[in-house]
Amino acid sequence: MQQMDGTADTPELEQLYRDFEAQSLAPLWTQRDDLMPLTPAPKAIPHVWRWKALFDIAERSGELVPVGRGGERRAIGLTNPGLPGTAYATPTLWCAIQYLGGFETAPEHRHSQNAFRFVVEGEGVWTVVNGDPVAMRRGDLLLTPGWNFHGHHNDTAEPMAWIDGLDIPFSSYTDVGFFEYGTERVTDEASPDVSRAERLWAYPGLRPLSSLDAKPSSPISAYRWEYTDRALRSQLELEDEGYPATVEQGHAAIRYTNPTTGGDVMSTIRCEFHRLRAGAASALRHEVGSSVWQVFEGSGSVVLGDTTHRLEKGDLFVVPSWVPWSLQAETEFDLFRFNDGPVIERLGFERTYIPNRQNGAPQ
Amino acid sequence: MQQMDGTADTPELEQLYRDFEAQSLAPLWTQRDDLMPLTPAPKAIPHVWRWKALFDIAERSGELVPVGRGGERRAIGLTNPGLPGTAYATPTLWCAIQYLGGFETAPEHRHSQNAFRFVVEGEGVWTVVNGDPVAMRRGDLLLTPGWNFHGHHNDTAEPMAWIDGLDIPFSSYTDVGFFEYGTERVTDEASPDVSRAERLWAYPGLRPLSSLDAKPSSPISAYRWEYTDRALRSQLELEDEGYPATVEQGHAAIRYTNPTTGGDVMSTIRCEFHRLRAGAASALRHEVGSSVWQVFEGSGSVVLGDTTHRLEKGDLFVVPSWVPWSLQAETEFDLFRFNDGPVIERLGFERTYIPNRQNGAPQ
Amino acid sequence: MQQMDGTADTPELEQLYRDFEAQSLAPLWTQRDDLMPLTPAPKAIPHVWRWKALFDIAERSGELVPVGRGGERRAIGLTNPGLPGTAYATPTLWCAIQYLGGFETAPEHRHSQNAFRFVVEGEGVWTVVNGDPVAMRRGDLLLTPGWNFHGHHNDTAEPMAWIDGLDIPFSSYTDVGFFEYGTERVTDEASPDVSRAERLWAYPGLRPLSSLDAKPSSPISAYRWEYTDRALRSQLELEDEGYPATVEQGHAAIRYTNPTTGGDVMSTIRCEFHRLRAGAASALRHEVGSSVWQVFEGSGSVVLGDTTHRLEKGDLFVVPSWVPWSLQAETEFDLFRFNDGPVIERLGFERTYIPNRQNGAPQ
Amino acid sequence: MQQMDGTADTPELEQLYRDFEAQSLAPLWTQRDDLMPLTPAPKAIPHVWRWKALFDIAERSGELVPVGRGGERRAIGLTNPGLPGTAYATPTLWCAIQYLGGFETAPEHRHSQNAFRFVVEGEGVWTVVNGDPVAMRRGDLLLTPGWNFHGHHNDTAEPMAWIDGLDIPFSSYTDVGFFEYGTERVTDEASPDVSRAERLWAYPGLRPLSSLDAKPSSPISAYRWEYTDRALRSQLELEDEGYPATVEQGHAAIRYTNPTTGGDVMSTIRCEFHRLRAGAASALRHEVGSSVWQVFEGSGSVVLGDTTHRLEKGDLFVVPSWVPWSLQAETEFDLFRFNDGPVIERLGFERTYIPNRQNGAPQ
Repeated sequence: MQQMDGTADTPELEQLYRDFEAQSLAPLWTQRDDLMPLTPAPKAIPHVWRWKALFDIAERSGELVPVGRGGERRAIGLTNPGLPGTAYATPTLWCAIQYLGGFETAPEHRHSQNAFRFVVEGEGVWTVVNGDPVAMRRGDLLLTPGWNFHGHHNDTAEPMAWIDGLDIPFSSYTDVGFFEYGTERVTDEASPDVSRAERLWAYPGLRPLSSLDAKPSSPISAYRWEYTDRALRSQLELEDEGYPATVEQGHAAIRYTNPTTGGDVMSTIRCEFHRLRAGAASALRHEVGSSVWQVFEGSGSVVLGDTTHRLEKGDLFVVPSWVPWSLQAETEFDLFRFNDGPVIERLGFERTYIPNRQNGAPQ
Repeated sequence: MQQMDGTADTPELEQLYRDFEAQSLAPLWTQRDDLMPLTPAPKAIPHVWRWKALFDIAERSGELVPVGRGGERRAIGLTNPGLPGTAYATPTLWCAIQYLGGFETAPEHRHSQNAFRFVVEGEGVWTVVNGDPVAMRRGDLLLTPGWNFHGHHNDTAEPMAWIDGLDIPFSSYTDVGFFEYGTERVTDEASPDVSRAERLWAYPGLRPLSSLDAKPSSPISAYRWEYTDRALRSQLELEDEGYPATVEQGHAAIRYTNPTTGGDVMSTIRCEFHRLRAGAASALRHEVGSSVWQVFEGSGSVVLGDTTHRLEKGDLFVVPSWVPWSLQAETEFDLFRFNDGPVIERLGFERTYIPNRQNGAPQ
Repeated sequence: MQQMDGTADTPELEQLYRDFEAQSLAPLWTQRDDLMPLTPAPKAIPHVWRWKALFDIAERSGELVPVGRGGERRAIGLTNPGLPGTAYATPTLWCAIQYLGGFETAPEHRHSQNAFRFVVEGEGVWTVVNGDPVAMRRGDLLLTPGWNFHGHHNDTAEPMAWIDGLDIPFSSYTDVGFFEYGTERVTDEASPDVSRAERLWAYPGLRPLSSLDAKPSSPISAYRWEYTDRALRSQLELEDEGYPATVEQGHAAIRYTNPTTGGDVMSTIRCEFHRLRAGAASALRHEVGSSVWQVFEGSGSVVLGDTTHRLEKGDLFVVPSWVPWSLQAETEFDLFRFNDGPVIERLGFERTYIPNRQNGAPQ
Repeated sequence: MQQMDGTADTPELEQLYRDFEAQSLAPLWTQRDDLMPLTPAPKAIPHVWRWKALFDIAERSGELVPVGRGGERRAIGLTNPGLPGTAYATPTLWCAIQYLGGFETAPEHRHSQNAFRFVVEGEGVWTVVNGDPVAMRRGDLLLTPGWNFHGHHNDTAEPMAWIDGLDIPFSSYTDVGFFEYGTERVTDEASPDVSRAERLWAYPGLRPLSSLDAKPSSPISAYRWEYTDRALRSQLELEDEGYPATVEQGHAAIRYTNPTTGGDVMSTIRCEFHRLRAGAASALRHEVGSSVWQVFEGSGSVVLGDTTHRLEKGDLFVVPSWVPWSLQAETEFDLFRFNDGPVIERLGFERTYIPNRQNGAPQ
């Protein structure tokens, strides 16, 4: 323990510090540097998880661990190595691989935590959201906003795995979560191609006249790959034709939005999809807030701070706050991303820094 | 001229009223009733225009009146019989039939006034909005928000007619309009199936990451019939399956929206599409604000105040503020509507009254 | 009647125009210039009314015209000479001098129209808004937002006059108004110094915890002269001390706002107060939308288009849309202004042009 | 470690769990209960700190620890006993007593973290915010929103202590903070009664026309006790007169707001002041989110969960999320409160439960 000016402690000062602790107090001056760094200094670190390893261990879990009431989900969370003892991918975000064997059912429940699923491969599971069965297929983003009952059931003999994204760490940290059990099986075991929510809501720019209020979360239950793919392809084609459409040269991207506000799909989680042309690279970029990425297709690499990681289909990586990142595409390179952008922006903390922007680098 | 208490005027009072006029003044007490009625008392009246007659006279205009710089458009406005000497369909809204002969071009210009086109039949014209050619086809809603350059060209030998909707009366009344001429021909004579704006924006719930700000008007240049039709059909099917989806029994409806806000497509004009099942009727309804409707398909009738009008494809009618209206469908009955809802709502004047709602009538 | 290209009409064309009229139609091409001018071309014209003349004729009205149920108010509206046959100061705004003799009462009623009163001299009247008596004193702005019951009573033997501002023209034009009679006398004849609404709401930055929702109109019933004066004086002092505070050199101004949103006091009417130092001038400025001004104190002049008008205490003038205006102060010069700014801005039509801004003129 | 169904682990399962850990993974099923409790289960606990003890230890710090660059502030944070090893009052909020001896200066710096000071006793210090000296006096709330340079200087020979509130825990947890040093002394050592920001902004419902945009934080630098006191007194008087004004019987309260939006003073921190009549009690209430309270005047007690704590002037206590609380006033009882309400509400997690509301208890 030191004084502000760096001199050694006197007995009086030592007694003072002991008294602080006894009285449930702590001085700012000894920890100001750590609490208020010059730039964000996350405990979370960049890390990559390999899809093949994740899938293998999920499959083993499928053999050894039944899914059911209590544990609720056969979901295996990514633990950020900088946040040991947790299953937090970043301080705010949870990301897990969830695995459901042939004909298995994950029981219904609801919770304040916002959740989504993204499917990198496979199909055959329906997630039932407030009684509405939603097919899960490769490339789809499926939403389960807070306090909607939901369960999953596999309508086939084949297992299926996907990733779950939730705001569990944030909700746990801020003590905002409620939880309620539902039925042991899903309330509707039908397996329609298209959910009712999509039939009501998933049209470009059209809203049902029966539901005109702004909703806190998107009412679109499923964002289908067909549209995501077409939107990205169109951006690159428009760029080829000479029109502004992409984020930077060779880098197309869409944000999934709530059609009732134009804003993010859920209050705490932003979802995006990025596509880089073969050979393209994104500018190195520092951003406030943390992200999780999953490679959907193609191969390339990501620079995370000082390290470059080669990436294949399904690989996941996290970018903690303010750690600079850049993507490089070998082939056409498709990546899904989610982050805590809505938390950062709604509370006014957003900041981005692109070191080379002034030097003519791609933007 | 009378006193407030109804007694006859004295010479002093007559002098007073003459002095008011001489000094550019006018008393409230003699006109309060007219200026501030108990319920809205529009000068505009309900009226029906027949599509066949409109098309015929538009065709004659096509033979007699060239289209070009100065007049700018071969557009024939609906004159509300209650607003003689104008070409105003309602106090706030302009509605015209526009006619373009084979290979004709309407030159480019821009103006503060917000505009759209809706196509009840035909195809072959491209409206070029800020240099982006937008195909016009049956059932499509095409937007030209304020201050975008636009012109139209017919790429075929066949004439085409459609309706234009604008806020010309409102803009003229409030003195807010600017106007600027552009090129004599359209700046891009290509005839693509899909416009660039659609390729960038027309996906359910997806936004380009390169354009994340809220826009005052919808960036979707064209709302295609395929989606409108599918959305309405789905609402009726969901109703059949027992789920809430329609406005009232047998009455499906969508609102066209700005995907960057979830609100109306333009700041002064609301656009909707309604479909009633054969045999269905909408509840009689008083609404603040004025509407223009066009039958798109099917037949039925509308009650406007005390009168019932039978309607066929293409027929147009206006509903002034607070005039009660109800639709009855003989066949499946499709109608496009636009109104000044955004003006009414943004300024806090909205009010709706459904007389029979309490009596178990359809809602 | 002419064709678009200026050639004379043929018999066929004359028949076409007759048929337009018979079918309640009107061509755009013959009136496009008028309907869509290059810049706003208001029918309303700049005009000045002298306070002395207004007060005198109001006093004569007080002798000749009783105030009471039916006529409701002894209010004499300013008629814009460009809008003859109306009592409209501008297309959207009503401004009247209202006069109440000693111990007279104007009965209670309510209406959709938004209203305020501004007091250039005198005191002794209480306006009772939803049962809450609000003292009216020199320099005060008193609000009566739409659909609040209100009446006025003079608690003294002396007459009092003030100006009323309302959106009657706008409401009448758009057909949005409802009206309801209340009691013949005011519901609370007390004469407190401070109204209950002020006691609950009129504190800098404080809101009652019992009322946290955003309200469409300001809940502050009275904006007292003491604060307005102090705010303006402070701006000029801050300017003297070298800090940014004024609109332009020597020109202080405040906007009256709704503390629940930070926006305008009412949905259709903006209220401001301006103070120029002796000798100061405001930059010549074109603005979309129309304003009414009243001199509160001091003398100076206003340029309205090509004409300069000298102004004294109480004088009123109107500035139609896009007519350039500039104020010049002889003495310290205080002016109250109201306009239709919220209508213009909420619908996206705002535009301002200051011709000399690039040339180093005051801004 | 157990399976979901409670059976003991097999060797295969034990190996699986070891492999999870080796691969930076963690199963949801073993920790779901903790991560997603049925209702919020905060680690933070209710706790009371006594003002006398705080002041005494701050005074000792004043003798032993110099204030200056590096440590920056002689601030002693409240450590929630449920969050040992931190100086966090709650998971999201920092609260410290800060102490400045006669003529001492705390150097200038700025940071992303939002901050305020509240003064329970004393005066003589000016906090200089972006170069604007703001006097600190008993009952005043002083704001230092994120990224404004600020320092403090004591203009008297007497020491002064006050409480600081910041979002340090939240900012640290979410990794959003930037920090920058400023000058060693304050940039303006003047000691005016009223700051420039107040002179520009602190009027009921008035805004300078030179600054009309919505600001993320309140521009009012100081909320003076005079207004807070008057607002609270008026609410109780209005209640006595029979008008709705208080939160519940005998319980007046105001929220400090941003006059440019009507919302909270800063994006992460809500500030309120509560006054209970002698003898009054507030209904027992569960709320999502955490609060810190300080008694400003009077005496009474607070129920926190199962325990009642008697309170005197200056005492501080924390209410973690969902812990039920109720205030009881012996004398007239004044309390300042701050909490993370804006975080909770902007992200859609607000929920309140008042167990006895249905039973006729006070609300």
